[in-house]
Amino acid sequence: MITSQVFYGLLFSGLLQMFTTESKAHVSVILVGASGDLAKKYLWQGLFQSYMDQVGGGHSFSFYGGTRLHSSEGSPAMYEILKGLSCLPNVPSVKCALLKEQFLKLTQYHQLDTKEDYSILNKKIEELLVQEGLEEEGRLFYLCVPAFAYADIATKVNATCRPRKASWLRVVLEKPFGHDLNSAQRLAEELQKVLREEEMYRIDHYLGKQAIAHILPFRHDNHHSLDPIWNQHHIERVEIVMKETVDSKGRTSFYEQYGVICDVIQNHLTEILTFVAMETPVNISDSEEIHRNKMKVYASLEKLDKESAVIGQYQAYNAEVRQELQKPADYTSTIPTFAGVAIFLESPRWDSVPFILTAGKALDERVGYTRIVFKNKAFCLQNESTRKAEFSQCKPRQIIFYVGHGDLNFPAILVSKNLFKPVINASSWKQVTDFPDVHMFGLPLSDYYIYTPVTRKDAYAVLIPQILQAKRDSFVNTEDLLASWKVWTPLLKEFSRERPRVYPGGAQNGDLLDFTVVGRVVSFSVAEPVAIISQSFSRQSASDYKVIESSFRGNELVSANTEELIAKLASYLHQAAQTTVLEFGKFHLAVSGGSSPIKLFQRLASHHCTFPWKQTHFWMVDERCVALHDAKSNFRSLHDHLLKHFKIPYINIHPMPVHMNQRLCVEDDHGADLYANEIKMLVNGTNFDFVLLGMGADGHTASLFPNSQAPTLDSKLVLFSESPVKPHQRMTLSLSAINKSKNIAVLVTGRSKHPIVSKMSKAVEKPLKWPIASVQPSDGKLVWFIDYDALLG
Amino acid sequence: MITSQVFYGLLFSGLLQMFTTESKAHVSVILVGASGDLAKKYLWQGLFQSYMDQVGGGHSFSFYGGTRLHSSEGSPAMYEILKGLSCLPNVPSVKCALLKEQFLKLTQYHQLDTKEDYSILNKKIEELLVQEGLEEEGRLFYLCVPAFAYADIATKVNATCRPRKASWLRVVLEKPFGHDLNSAQRLAEELQKVLREEEMYRIDHYLGKQAIAHILPFRHDNHHSLDPIWNQHHIERVEIVMKETVDSKGRTSFYEQYGVICDVIQNHLTEILTFVAMETPVNISDSEEIHRNKMKVYASLEKLDKESAVIGQYQAYNAEVRQELQKPADYTSTIPTFAGVAIFLESPRWDSVPFILTAGKALDERVGYTRIVFKNKAFCLQNESTRKAEFSQCKPRQIIFYVGHGDLNFPAILVSKNLFKPVINASSWKQVTDFPDVHMFGLPLSDYYIYTPVTRKDAYAVLIPQILQAKRDSFVNTEDLLASWKVWTPLLKEFSRERPRVYPGGAQNGDLLDFTVVGRVVSFSVAEPVAIISQSFSRQSASDYKVIESSFRGNELVSANTEELIAKLASYLHQAAQTTVLEFGKFHLAVSGGSSPIKLFQRLASHHCTFPWKQTHFWMVDERCVALHDAKSNFRSLHDHLLKHFKIPYINIHPMPVHMNQRLCVEDDHGADLYANEIKMLVNGTNFDFVLLGMGADGHTASLFPNSQAPTLDSKLVLFSESPVKPHQRMTLSLSAINKSKNIAVLVTGRSKHPIVSKMSKAVEKPLKWPIASVQPSDGKLVWFIDYDALLG
Repeated sequence: MITSQVFYGLLFSGLLQMFTTESKAHVSVILVGASGDLAKKYLWQGLFQSYMDQVGGGHSFSFYGGTRLHSSEGSPAMYEILKGLSCLPNVPSVKCALLKEQFLKLTQYHQLDTKEDYSILNKKIEELLVQEGLEEEGRLFYLCVPAFAYADIATKVNATCRPRKASWLRVVLEKPFGHDLNSAQRLAEELQKVLREEEMYRIDHYLGKQAIAHILPFRHDNHHSLDPIWNQHHIERVEIVMKETVDSKGRTSFYEQYGVICDVIQNHLTEILTFVAMETPVNISDSEEIHRNKMKVYASLEKLDKESAVIGQYQAYNAEVRQELQKPADYTSTIPTFAGVAIFLESPRWDSVPFILTAGKALDERVGYTRIVFKNKAFCLQNESTRKAEFSQCKPRQIIFYVGHGDLNFPAILVSKNLFKPVINASSWKQVTDFPDVHMFGLPLSDYYIYTPVTRKDAYAVLIPQILQAKRDSFVNTEDLLASWKVWTPLLKEFSRERPRVYPGGAQNGDLLDFTVVGRVVSFSVAEPVAIISQSFSRQSASDYKVIESSFRGNELVSANTEELIAKLASYLHQAAQTTVLEFGKFHLAVSGGSSPIKLFQRLASHHCTFPWKQTHFWMVDERCVALHDAKSNFRSLHDHLLKHFKIPYINIHPMPVHMNQRLCVEDDHGADLYANEIKMLVNGTNFDFVLLGMGADGHTASLFPNSQAPTLDSKLVLFSESPVKPHQRMTLSLSAINKSKNIAVLVTGRSKHPIVSKMSKAVEKPLKWPIASVQPSDGKLVWFIDYDALLG
Repeated sequence: MITSQVFYGLLFSGLLQMFTTESKAHVSVILVGASGDLAKKYLWQGLFQSYMDQVGGGHSFSFYGGTRLHSSEGSPAMYEILKGLSCLPNVPSVKCALLKEQFLKLTQYHQLDTKEDYSILNKKIEELLVQEGLEEEGRLFYLCVPAFAYADIATKVNATCRPRKASWLRVVLEKPFGHDLNSAQRLAEELQKVLREEEMYRIDHYLGKQAIAHILPFRHDNHHSLDPIWNQHHIERVEIVMKETVDSKGRTSFYEQYGVICDVIQNHLTEILTFVAMETPVNISDSEEIHRNKMKVYASLEKLDKESAVIGQYQAYNAEVRQELQKPADYTSTIPTFAGVAIFLESPRWDSVPFILTAGKALDERVGYTRIVFKNKAFCLQNESTRKAEFSQCKPRQIIFYVGHGDLNFPAILVSKNLFKPVINASSWKQVTDFPDVHMFGLPLSDYYIYTPVTRKDAYAVLIPQILQAKRDSFVNTEDLLASWKVWTPLLKEFSRERPRVYPGGAQNGDLLDFTVVGRVVSFSVAEPVAIISQSFSRQSASDYKVIESSFRGNELVSANTEELIAKLASYLHQAAQTTVLEFGKFHLAVSGGSSPIKLFQRLASHHCTFPWKQTHFWMVDERCVALHDAKSNFRSLHDHLLKHFKIPYINIHPMPVHMNQRLCVEDDHGADLYANEIKMLVNGTNFDFVLLGMGADGHTASLFPNSQAPTLDSKLVLFSESPVKPHQRMTLSLSAINKSKNIAVLVTGRSKHPIVSKMSKAVEKPLKWPIASVQPSDGKLVWFIDYDALLG
């Protein structure tokens, strides 16, 4: 084999000069893993395309392909791939042949296994530079190898292949970058030991899809039209969709580790979300600004939990896993092959807009798009048959970044004609006027302005030049990556033992995977057919859990597993509020602090939008002597988990005045009396409508602790008290205030409460020893809500 | 002419017995205005139909028609009308002829002009009762005369025609019942002098349209399906629509007084709104419960203002008015013949749902419907071409009460199949399976369950039997009527001098009348073409008002008419907030009390949803020493006009602590110091980001009044002060606190401020005499916002 240097020299003084300028800035591109699947399908072609695009751009190139194999094996395999390279259709065949020949001559194979191998490569590169009198611009290592090998290779590159100071080193990495926050963090730390942040290019090829790569430029170019409407007041929702028809057969060893969320949602779809949601960059070429804006989006993402998503698994998946991974016949995978997620942002721009991210395998069609659906705020007087697409505000208004496939079958940007005629860069995008006669997203295609790229390019051909130009915004930096994992890891954990809904695959899925977003809660639209379930799973069914409703300490007892119990208590409280408001116009609710009511608050916030929030007065059962905005404040917890989600009149909210005159709970400030007076003034007869209590493992309730004087001070409504745990100082309703309530609910959850529950199930009457034992409404109703763990141990 | 008594007697012992039961309860029906238009077109037919329906129902009847004419003239005119009566198609012609003959025999003409005439009528009725040995059940006077005659006739009826005690008197009135709150109140008072509430039946015939009359029964029968979804979380909006193709030619003398709002929106459409919005009655036959629920709806309606509606006038209207009412050639009517209104309710159920009420003449089609549009919360995985109407939640979901005409051309109730299959009373409604092949409301008719009445009845035939049964819920009682006028009168006033948009009429209207509802603001979707305007109107155009931006007291001055000025100040404030939040994450805003900022608060609430509300801290510039919930509290005003419309974190809201230890502004409670400390703790360097001030006619600002000590107390941030007007005691920021602000805006509006503005336009520097003169930020920016009235006088 003749070494490529020779060719290179020849070419450089010959053909190449036809295209290059006089500059001799030289870039060495090293593809590690040169004959793998991805290299074969996309990367060499992407490098060739980038080479063609760059010819004449002021650089010269040499390319090295390497694998761990000796060149006798590795080299033929690589050249076999290179033979298949092709030009874009618009390149004349003679020119294409010439370019291809030239590219081949610039490319050589090099074994890359040991540190020694990398040293030799380094020497080769430097020799070439000297021989040809080239000034080195940089070296690009493209790691197309399994992720576990990244750190090792990066270490070798760092040790042996760094160019001289003025030149750059860039190392390109392909996903996956971990499978959760921890693993991503570990990998990032290892890489950071040997590479600087700006040297790493984590590639997410989906961001190179032309329609996706154009989201930010489109927003930028059309900001005059978009600025007034790119917000929650005009946008109904954003759909980021990647449907595949293929399944994961043959790839289950990978898929069993990752699942659909890690495979495509945590990366591709989440990155797209940031492009749609971020503030429009002032300077579209400023990668730093884009990064900052992206990080702000991450910071504003609301936490995901089990109710944020639905998951599914195509029916054959389990059998494939058992076979390919040699699992036993009873092995059941809970890895989802489908997920639908609703993400919300806490920001003035996006406050209540669901970003619906959905992806899956074995679906009914292959299609990918990002769709911004605008609210319909118009009322059209005209009879609907006479409305015109360009004018009528009553037709759907939407913008779609269409990746390809599906009914349209080419990458495109679609804008409803009744929105605006977009400004678009005519050198790279052209308007489409000849299109299939189909309806898409509820409209005939003629109702859209449609644009498609002038030249269709593969994602890699879009992204590789950006690496050369150090345009970092289509790449995932460490901060970005970890922020995304931070969002997704809690959801992955919550779902790790959850059974996905089983779906048959393909067109047979019907509406089985359709889902609905109500408030923050995502759920499948149709019930699961039992036939499919029983085939694949034998699990405890919901009916295994029975609600025990009997009595406890002579009062009504409701018991269930925690989640169900919380739901029942929320409904019970809602019912009480509704009835009371209907009769009296107001509902006075006093809530306890601590951790147990948080789940109730969350449940109320997500499921009880119809609660009479505006008519409810919120009082505190007890408070820690800390500032209201302190993280330990009971009020703060009530506010953050419940109040802030609704428009509640300010004067209906009654935090305890623990913070007066810049000091906390000082007797002389008379905070307890102040609160008692407020109650007397507003609560009729000082009878709260509903008091929500907890019970401590020591038998305390409210901030009335065992063996203290507080429980006996019955003449007062509000007291200061001392807790055995920090913060010690408390303000609390008295037993007499509590027992005057019309309704009391005591919520007790968790195994740690089992001993006290057992103790309390027998009659005890020592108010000093067990304050909870003295809770007994004089003229109201008391209901115990105790979960199975606390009740049964 | 043979008197009807004779016939009656004959019949009673003959034919009538075929149909009647043995009961002799007798009802006399007296139609006053027996040969008017309405009587001719609907009422006699309605009475005949009701008679036919009631035959066999346990009553006997006699009918009297009267006008002010002597029977020699009146009687032939009336009998001419009666000849034209017809039966429903399902009645065999022999039976029909029999019934008609019978009805004619039961009917007689009676002159009804003077009190004497009514006395004679009374005598006639009583003689008949005695003659026939009938027990009187009641007397129904149907007043089909102009509204101005109501009181007079009612007085005569009261004086002469009251039946004996056990029998009822019912007087039916046709709209209009006034043209605004005052006139309606006057009319109501006059009637109340002579009639008891339960004796008056104000008829709104539109409520007798079968689809409308079935709204409540439908909601009741389907409450299991509707209860969970009949609220803001599921309903996108409600459209109540009445489009007419006719114009008001020939009726302009009436129309010029009323316009479209009084003619059909204040009554028909508003009543429908209450049927849709009210709580479902537990007992659908309990008129009292329905009335209570209806009044709750009225109580919850948000105030309407100019921004709640758009109005239009068909182009030919003006010429018609000039001709018919003999007006001069330059007469320009501002009476709207079209209106589109968005009404919001302040209730947990309907909080953010627009009720769109729209009606007009000379439109492109005749159609009436009430449409409930549900939100689309679903994401459908299936390709859209394969979705099925019954299942796919991605198709529009709606319920339509269709009055008739339009594309469907029969009264109907339509329910999207993907909602639920409704329960419907099969004896009165039947499912339609054979329908025109048209799309309605975005769906083919096959996507709906469609029901139509088994027997189509005219509205009067629906309502008259309800009068006989004393079923009052389809009628408008006094309380109801005045509540409705209370809603509409302010809007009518605001529009009384507003120019309606001119539209050509018919299909030519195109999208000229389409309108958009954003937040609480309704506006036309397309701009007004200039050509049409200039033809019909010569008014001051918007460009006659120029914004003067120069300087005042050495600082920037912005001036405009009040409304525009407020809009400018709101935008200026919004801009400042946005910039500040971007940089510091927070925005500390201090606002003044009094009346002038209210318009600003309202503007912010309606137009500035994208304001960074969650990041803004609200402080008070000054406060009156009253409780926070007192109507005079500045904070209460801020809350009610602004804060309550957004979800603002509780701890960002900082009312002044004027109410401590159950007493107001006592020095010993150190409220001013407390507030100063709060400012020091939270506001960086105690520099507010924005302070909004006003200026009193006496030169005061904040609660710093002329010739008091307060303005000079510069060492403190917060002070107690004394106002010359009640309530005297105040808490206020000091001048030093104000002048440390980064931005100050002083808002001055109204002619009463002109003298002080003139005075201040010259240099004065007496802080004791003119506190406002000392407002000058030490290191910030001051802008004056002064409206033309205040600036120019």
